[in-house]
Amino acid sequence: MTRTILSSATKEVVIGFDQPFCVIGERINPTGRKKLAAEMKAGDYSTVEADAIAQVAAGAAMLDVNAGIPLADEPRILAETIELVQGLVNVPLSIDSSIIEALEAGLAVYKGRPLVNSVTGEDESLERVLPLIKKYDCAVVAISNDETGISEDPDVRFEVARKIVERAQDHGISRNDVVVDPLVMPIGAMATAGRQVFALLKRLREELKVNSTCGLSNISFGIPNRHVLNAHFLSMAAASGLTSAIMNPLHAQEIDGAMAANVLNGVDGDCASWIVKYREPVDPEAGARPRGRENRRRRRAV
Amino acid sequence: MTRTILSSATKEVVIGFDQPFCVIGERINPTGRKKLAAEMKAGDYSTVEADAIAQVAAGAAMLDVNAGIPLADEPRILAETIELVQGLVNVPLSIDSSIIEALEAGLAVYKGRPLVNSVTGEDESLERVLPLIKKYDCAVVAISNDETGISEDPDVRFEVARKIVERAQDHGISRNDVVVDPLVMPIGAMATAGRQVFALLKRLREELKVNSTCGLSNISFGIPNRHVLNAHFLSMAAASGLTSAIMNPLHAQEIDGAMAANVLNGVDGDCASWIVKYREPVDPEAGARPRGRENRRRRRAV
Repeated sequence: MTRTILSSATKEVVIGFDQPFCVIGERINPTGRKKLAAEMKAGDYSTVEADAIAQVAAGAAMLDVNAGIPLADEPRILAETIELVQGLVNVPLSIDSSIIEALEAGLAVYKGRPLVNSVTGEDESLERVLPLIKKYDCAVVAISNDETGISEDPDVRFEVARKIVERAQDHGISRNDVVVDPLVMPIGAMATAGRQVFALLKRLREELKVNSTCGLSNISFGIPNRHVLNAHFLSMAAASGLTSAIMNPLHAQEIDGAMAANVLNGVDGDCASWIVKYREPVDPEAGARPRGRENRRRRRAV
Repeated sequence: MTRTILSSATKEVVIGFDQPFCVIGERINPTGRKKLAAEMKAGDYSTVEADAIAQVAAGAAMLDVNAGIPLADEPRILAETIELVQGLVNVPLSIDSSIIEALEAGLAVYKGRPLVNSVTGEDESLERVLPLIKKYDCAVVAISNDETGISEDPDVRFEVARKIVERAQDHGISRNDVVVDPLVMPIGAMATAGRQVFALLKRLREELKVNSTCGLSNISFGIPNRHVLNAHFLSMAAASGLTSAIMNPLHAQEIDGAMAANVLNGVDGDCASWIVKYREPVDPEAGARPRGRENRRRRRAV
C-alpha cells in the first residue's frame, strides 16, 4: 500500500489511498499577492501568521510555503517563513520553490519530514532536486512536464511521471515518496481537461502506484462560480485516485467536497468527521430543536 | 454508443455517456407524502401540477410519475396523473409502479416514448414487464435485485443486471433501452456503499455498455447535511459512469453537482450551460459591476 509519510516536529500526516484526502493550504504564497510579497520582503510576517492559523483552523492537514518574490533573498525569506510557521502550527509543510538554493535553505531549518514542491521531468531539475530529497530523506511533488513543455497528451504526461519515479528510485528514493502532479488544465480552454486528469489519476494509482496532488483551482480558471466547480472537481478526482491537493481551505465548498469525498470513498470511518462537523447541535434548554448550523444551511440553499 | 431515447409528444431526451446527465424529477410520488396521497386519491391534482412545473423549471430533463397509494385505484390515478402532467410540461416521463396493471394503464395513455420504472431480476417481474416494454417500444429501469433480495456483493448485483439485459434481448429489447439501477445503499450503514457503486457503474458502462440510474438520496439516509453529500455522490458517480438519477431537482446543490459533472466530464459544450447559469449579470446602467448572483454566492460561502 502506497503511503507518503510527512511530519512536523510533533505531528505525522499520511497520504494514501486508504487515508482521508490531504488538504494542503496554498495561501502562504506571494505569487499574485503584491501586498503579501511586499510584507515578506520587508520582514513583516503578520499576514503569513494569520494565513497559517486560519488555514489549519479551516481544515488544512498541511501547508504549502512559498517565498518567490522578485529581486528578494528567497532562500533567507523561505527559511524564516518556515521557522515562523513551524512555531505557530503543528502541521507538516510543503517547501515550495523553483530555486534549488531556496529549497536547500528551507530543508536546512525544517523540523520533521517535509514535502518538497517540486521536481519536474527535466533532466536538470531531476539531477538537482532528487539528491536533496535523498539527503534529507523527505518526499517530493513530481510535476509531469519535461523539456518539451506540458503535453496535451495524457499518455505523454504519464510517461514523464514514470520517468521521474524511475529516476527517483535510481537515487534511492521510494515511489512512496513521489507525489505526482498530473497537471490540471483549465476546463474552459479544453473540454477534455477533466476526463484526461481522471484517466491519468487512475493510471497513476493502478499502474504507477503513487500518490498524487494538483493545484485545484487551475481547473476553473476563467469560469464563473469557481468554488462549486473546484469542489466537484476535487471529489470526482478523488473518486479517480487523487489523494491530495494544493488548495484554499478557507473556501467552504472545497472543504465540503474533500469531506464528502472521504465519506463516499469510505475513508471517513463511521462518517465520524462528517457527522461531527455537520450534525445538528442540541440545545440542552430546549430539547432537540435544531438551530445554528441548520439555519445557516437553509440560508445557503436557494 | 449506448443511447436511450425517450420522448414526450414534442420533445426528445437522450441518455448516454456523451450526453448531459439526465435529471429525473422524483417529486410526483405519494410515498411518504400523506397530504399528496390524500389529494391524488380524491382527484385533486393541484400539488402534482405545482410539482411538475417547479421541477422542470429547476432543471429536470424528465419527471418520474408514481401513484402508489394504499387502497386506491392506482391504474386509474396513474393514467390520470400522466395525462395531466403531459398536458402541462413537455419533458418525457418515467412511469413508476410496482403494479403491472398500473404500468399498462399508464403506457396506454402516454404520448411519446416513456421510461418504465421498473423491472427487477425476479423471473415473475421479467416475464410480466418485458413484454410490455416490447409491446410499447419503450425503455425500462432494471433494478439489480432478484428472488434472493439485494446482494451486498456488487459482483452478484452486476450478474443480476447482466441477466436482465440478456432476458430483455430475448424479448427483442435492445440494451440501449435497459437503464440499470445498481442499487445505492446508505453510506451511514455501509462505509463501502460509495466505492461499490462507483466500481459497479464502471463495469455497467465498460462491460455491459448500458445506461444507469439510481435513487440519489438513498446514499445519505440518516446523515446530516444530506444535500451536499448527495451532490458529491452524483458528481463522483457521474465520473464513474452514472448517466441519470431520480432525484429532487428543487435542491440547488444537487443541480449544481449535475451541472459541474457535465462541465468536468466534457459534455457541457464550451461550458455553455454552466456559464449561462452562473455568469455575472452586467448592469447596462453601471458598466460591468457584478451584482445579484455574486452577492448571493458570497453569502452562501462561509
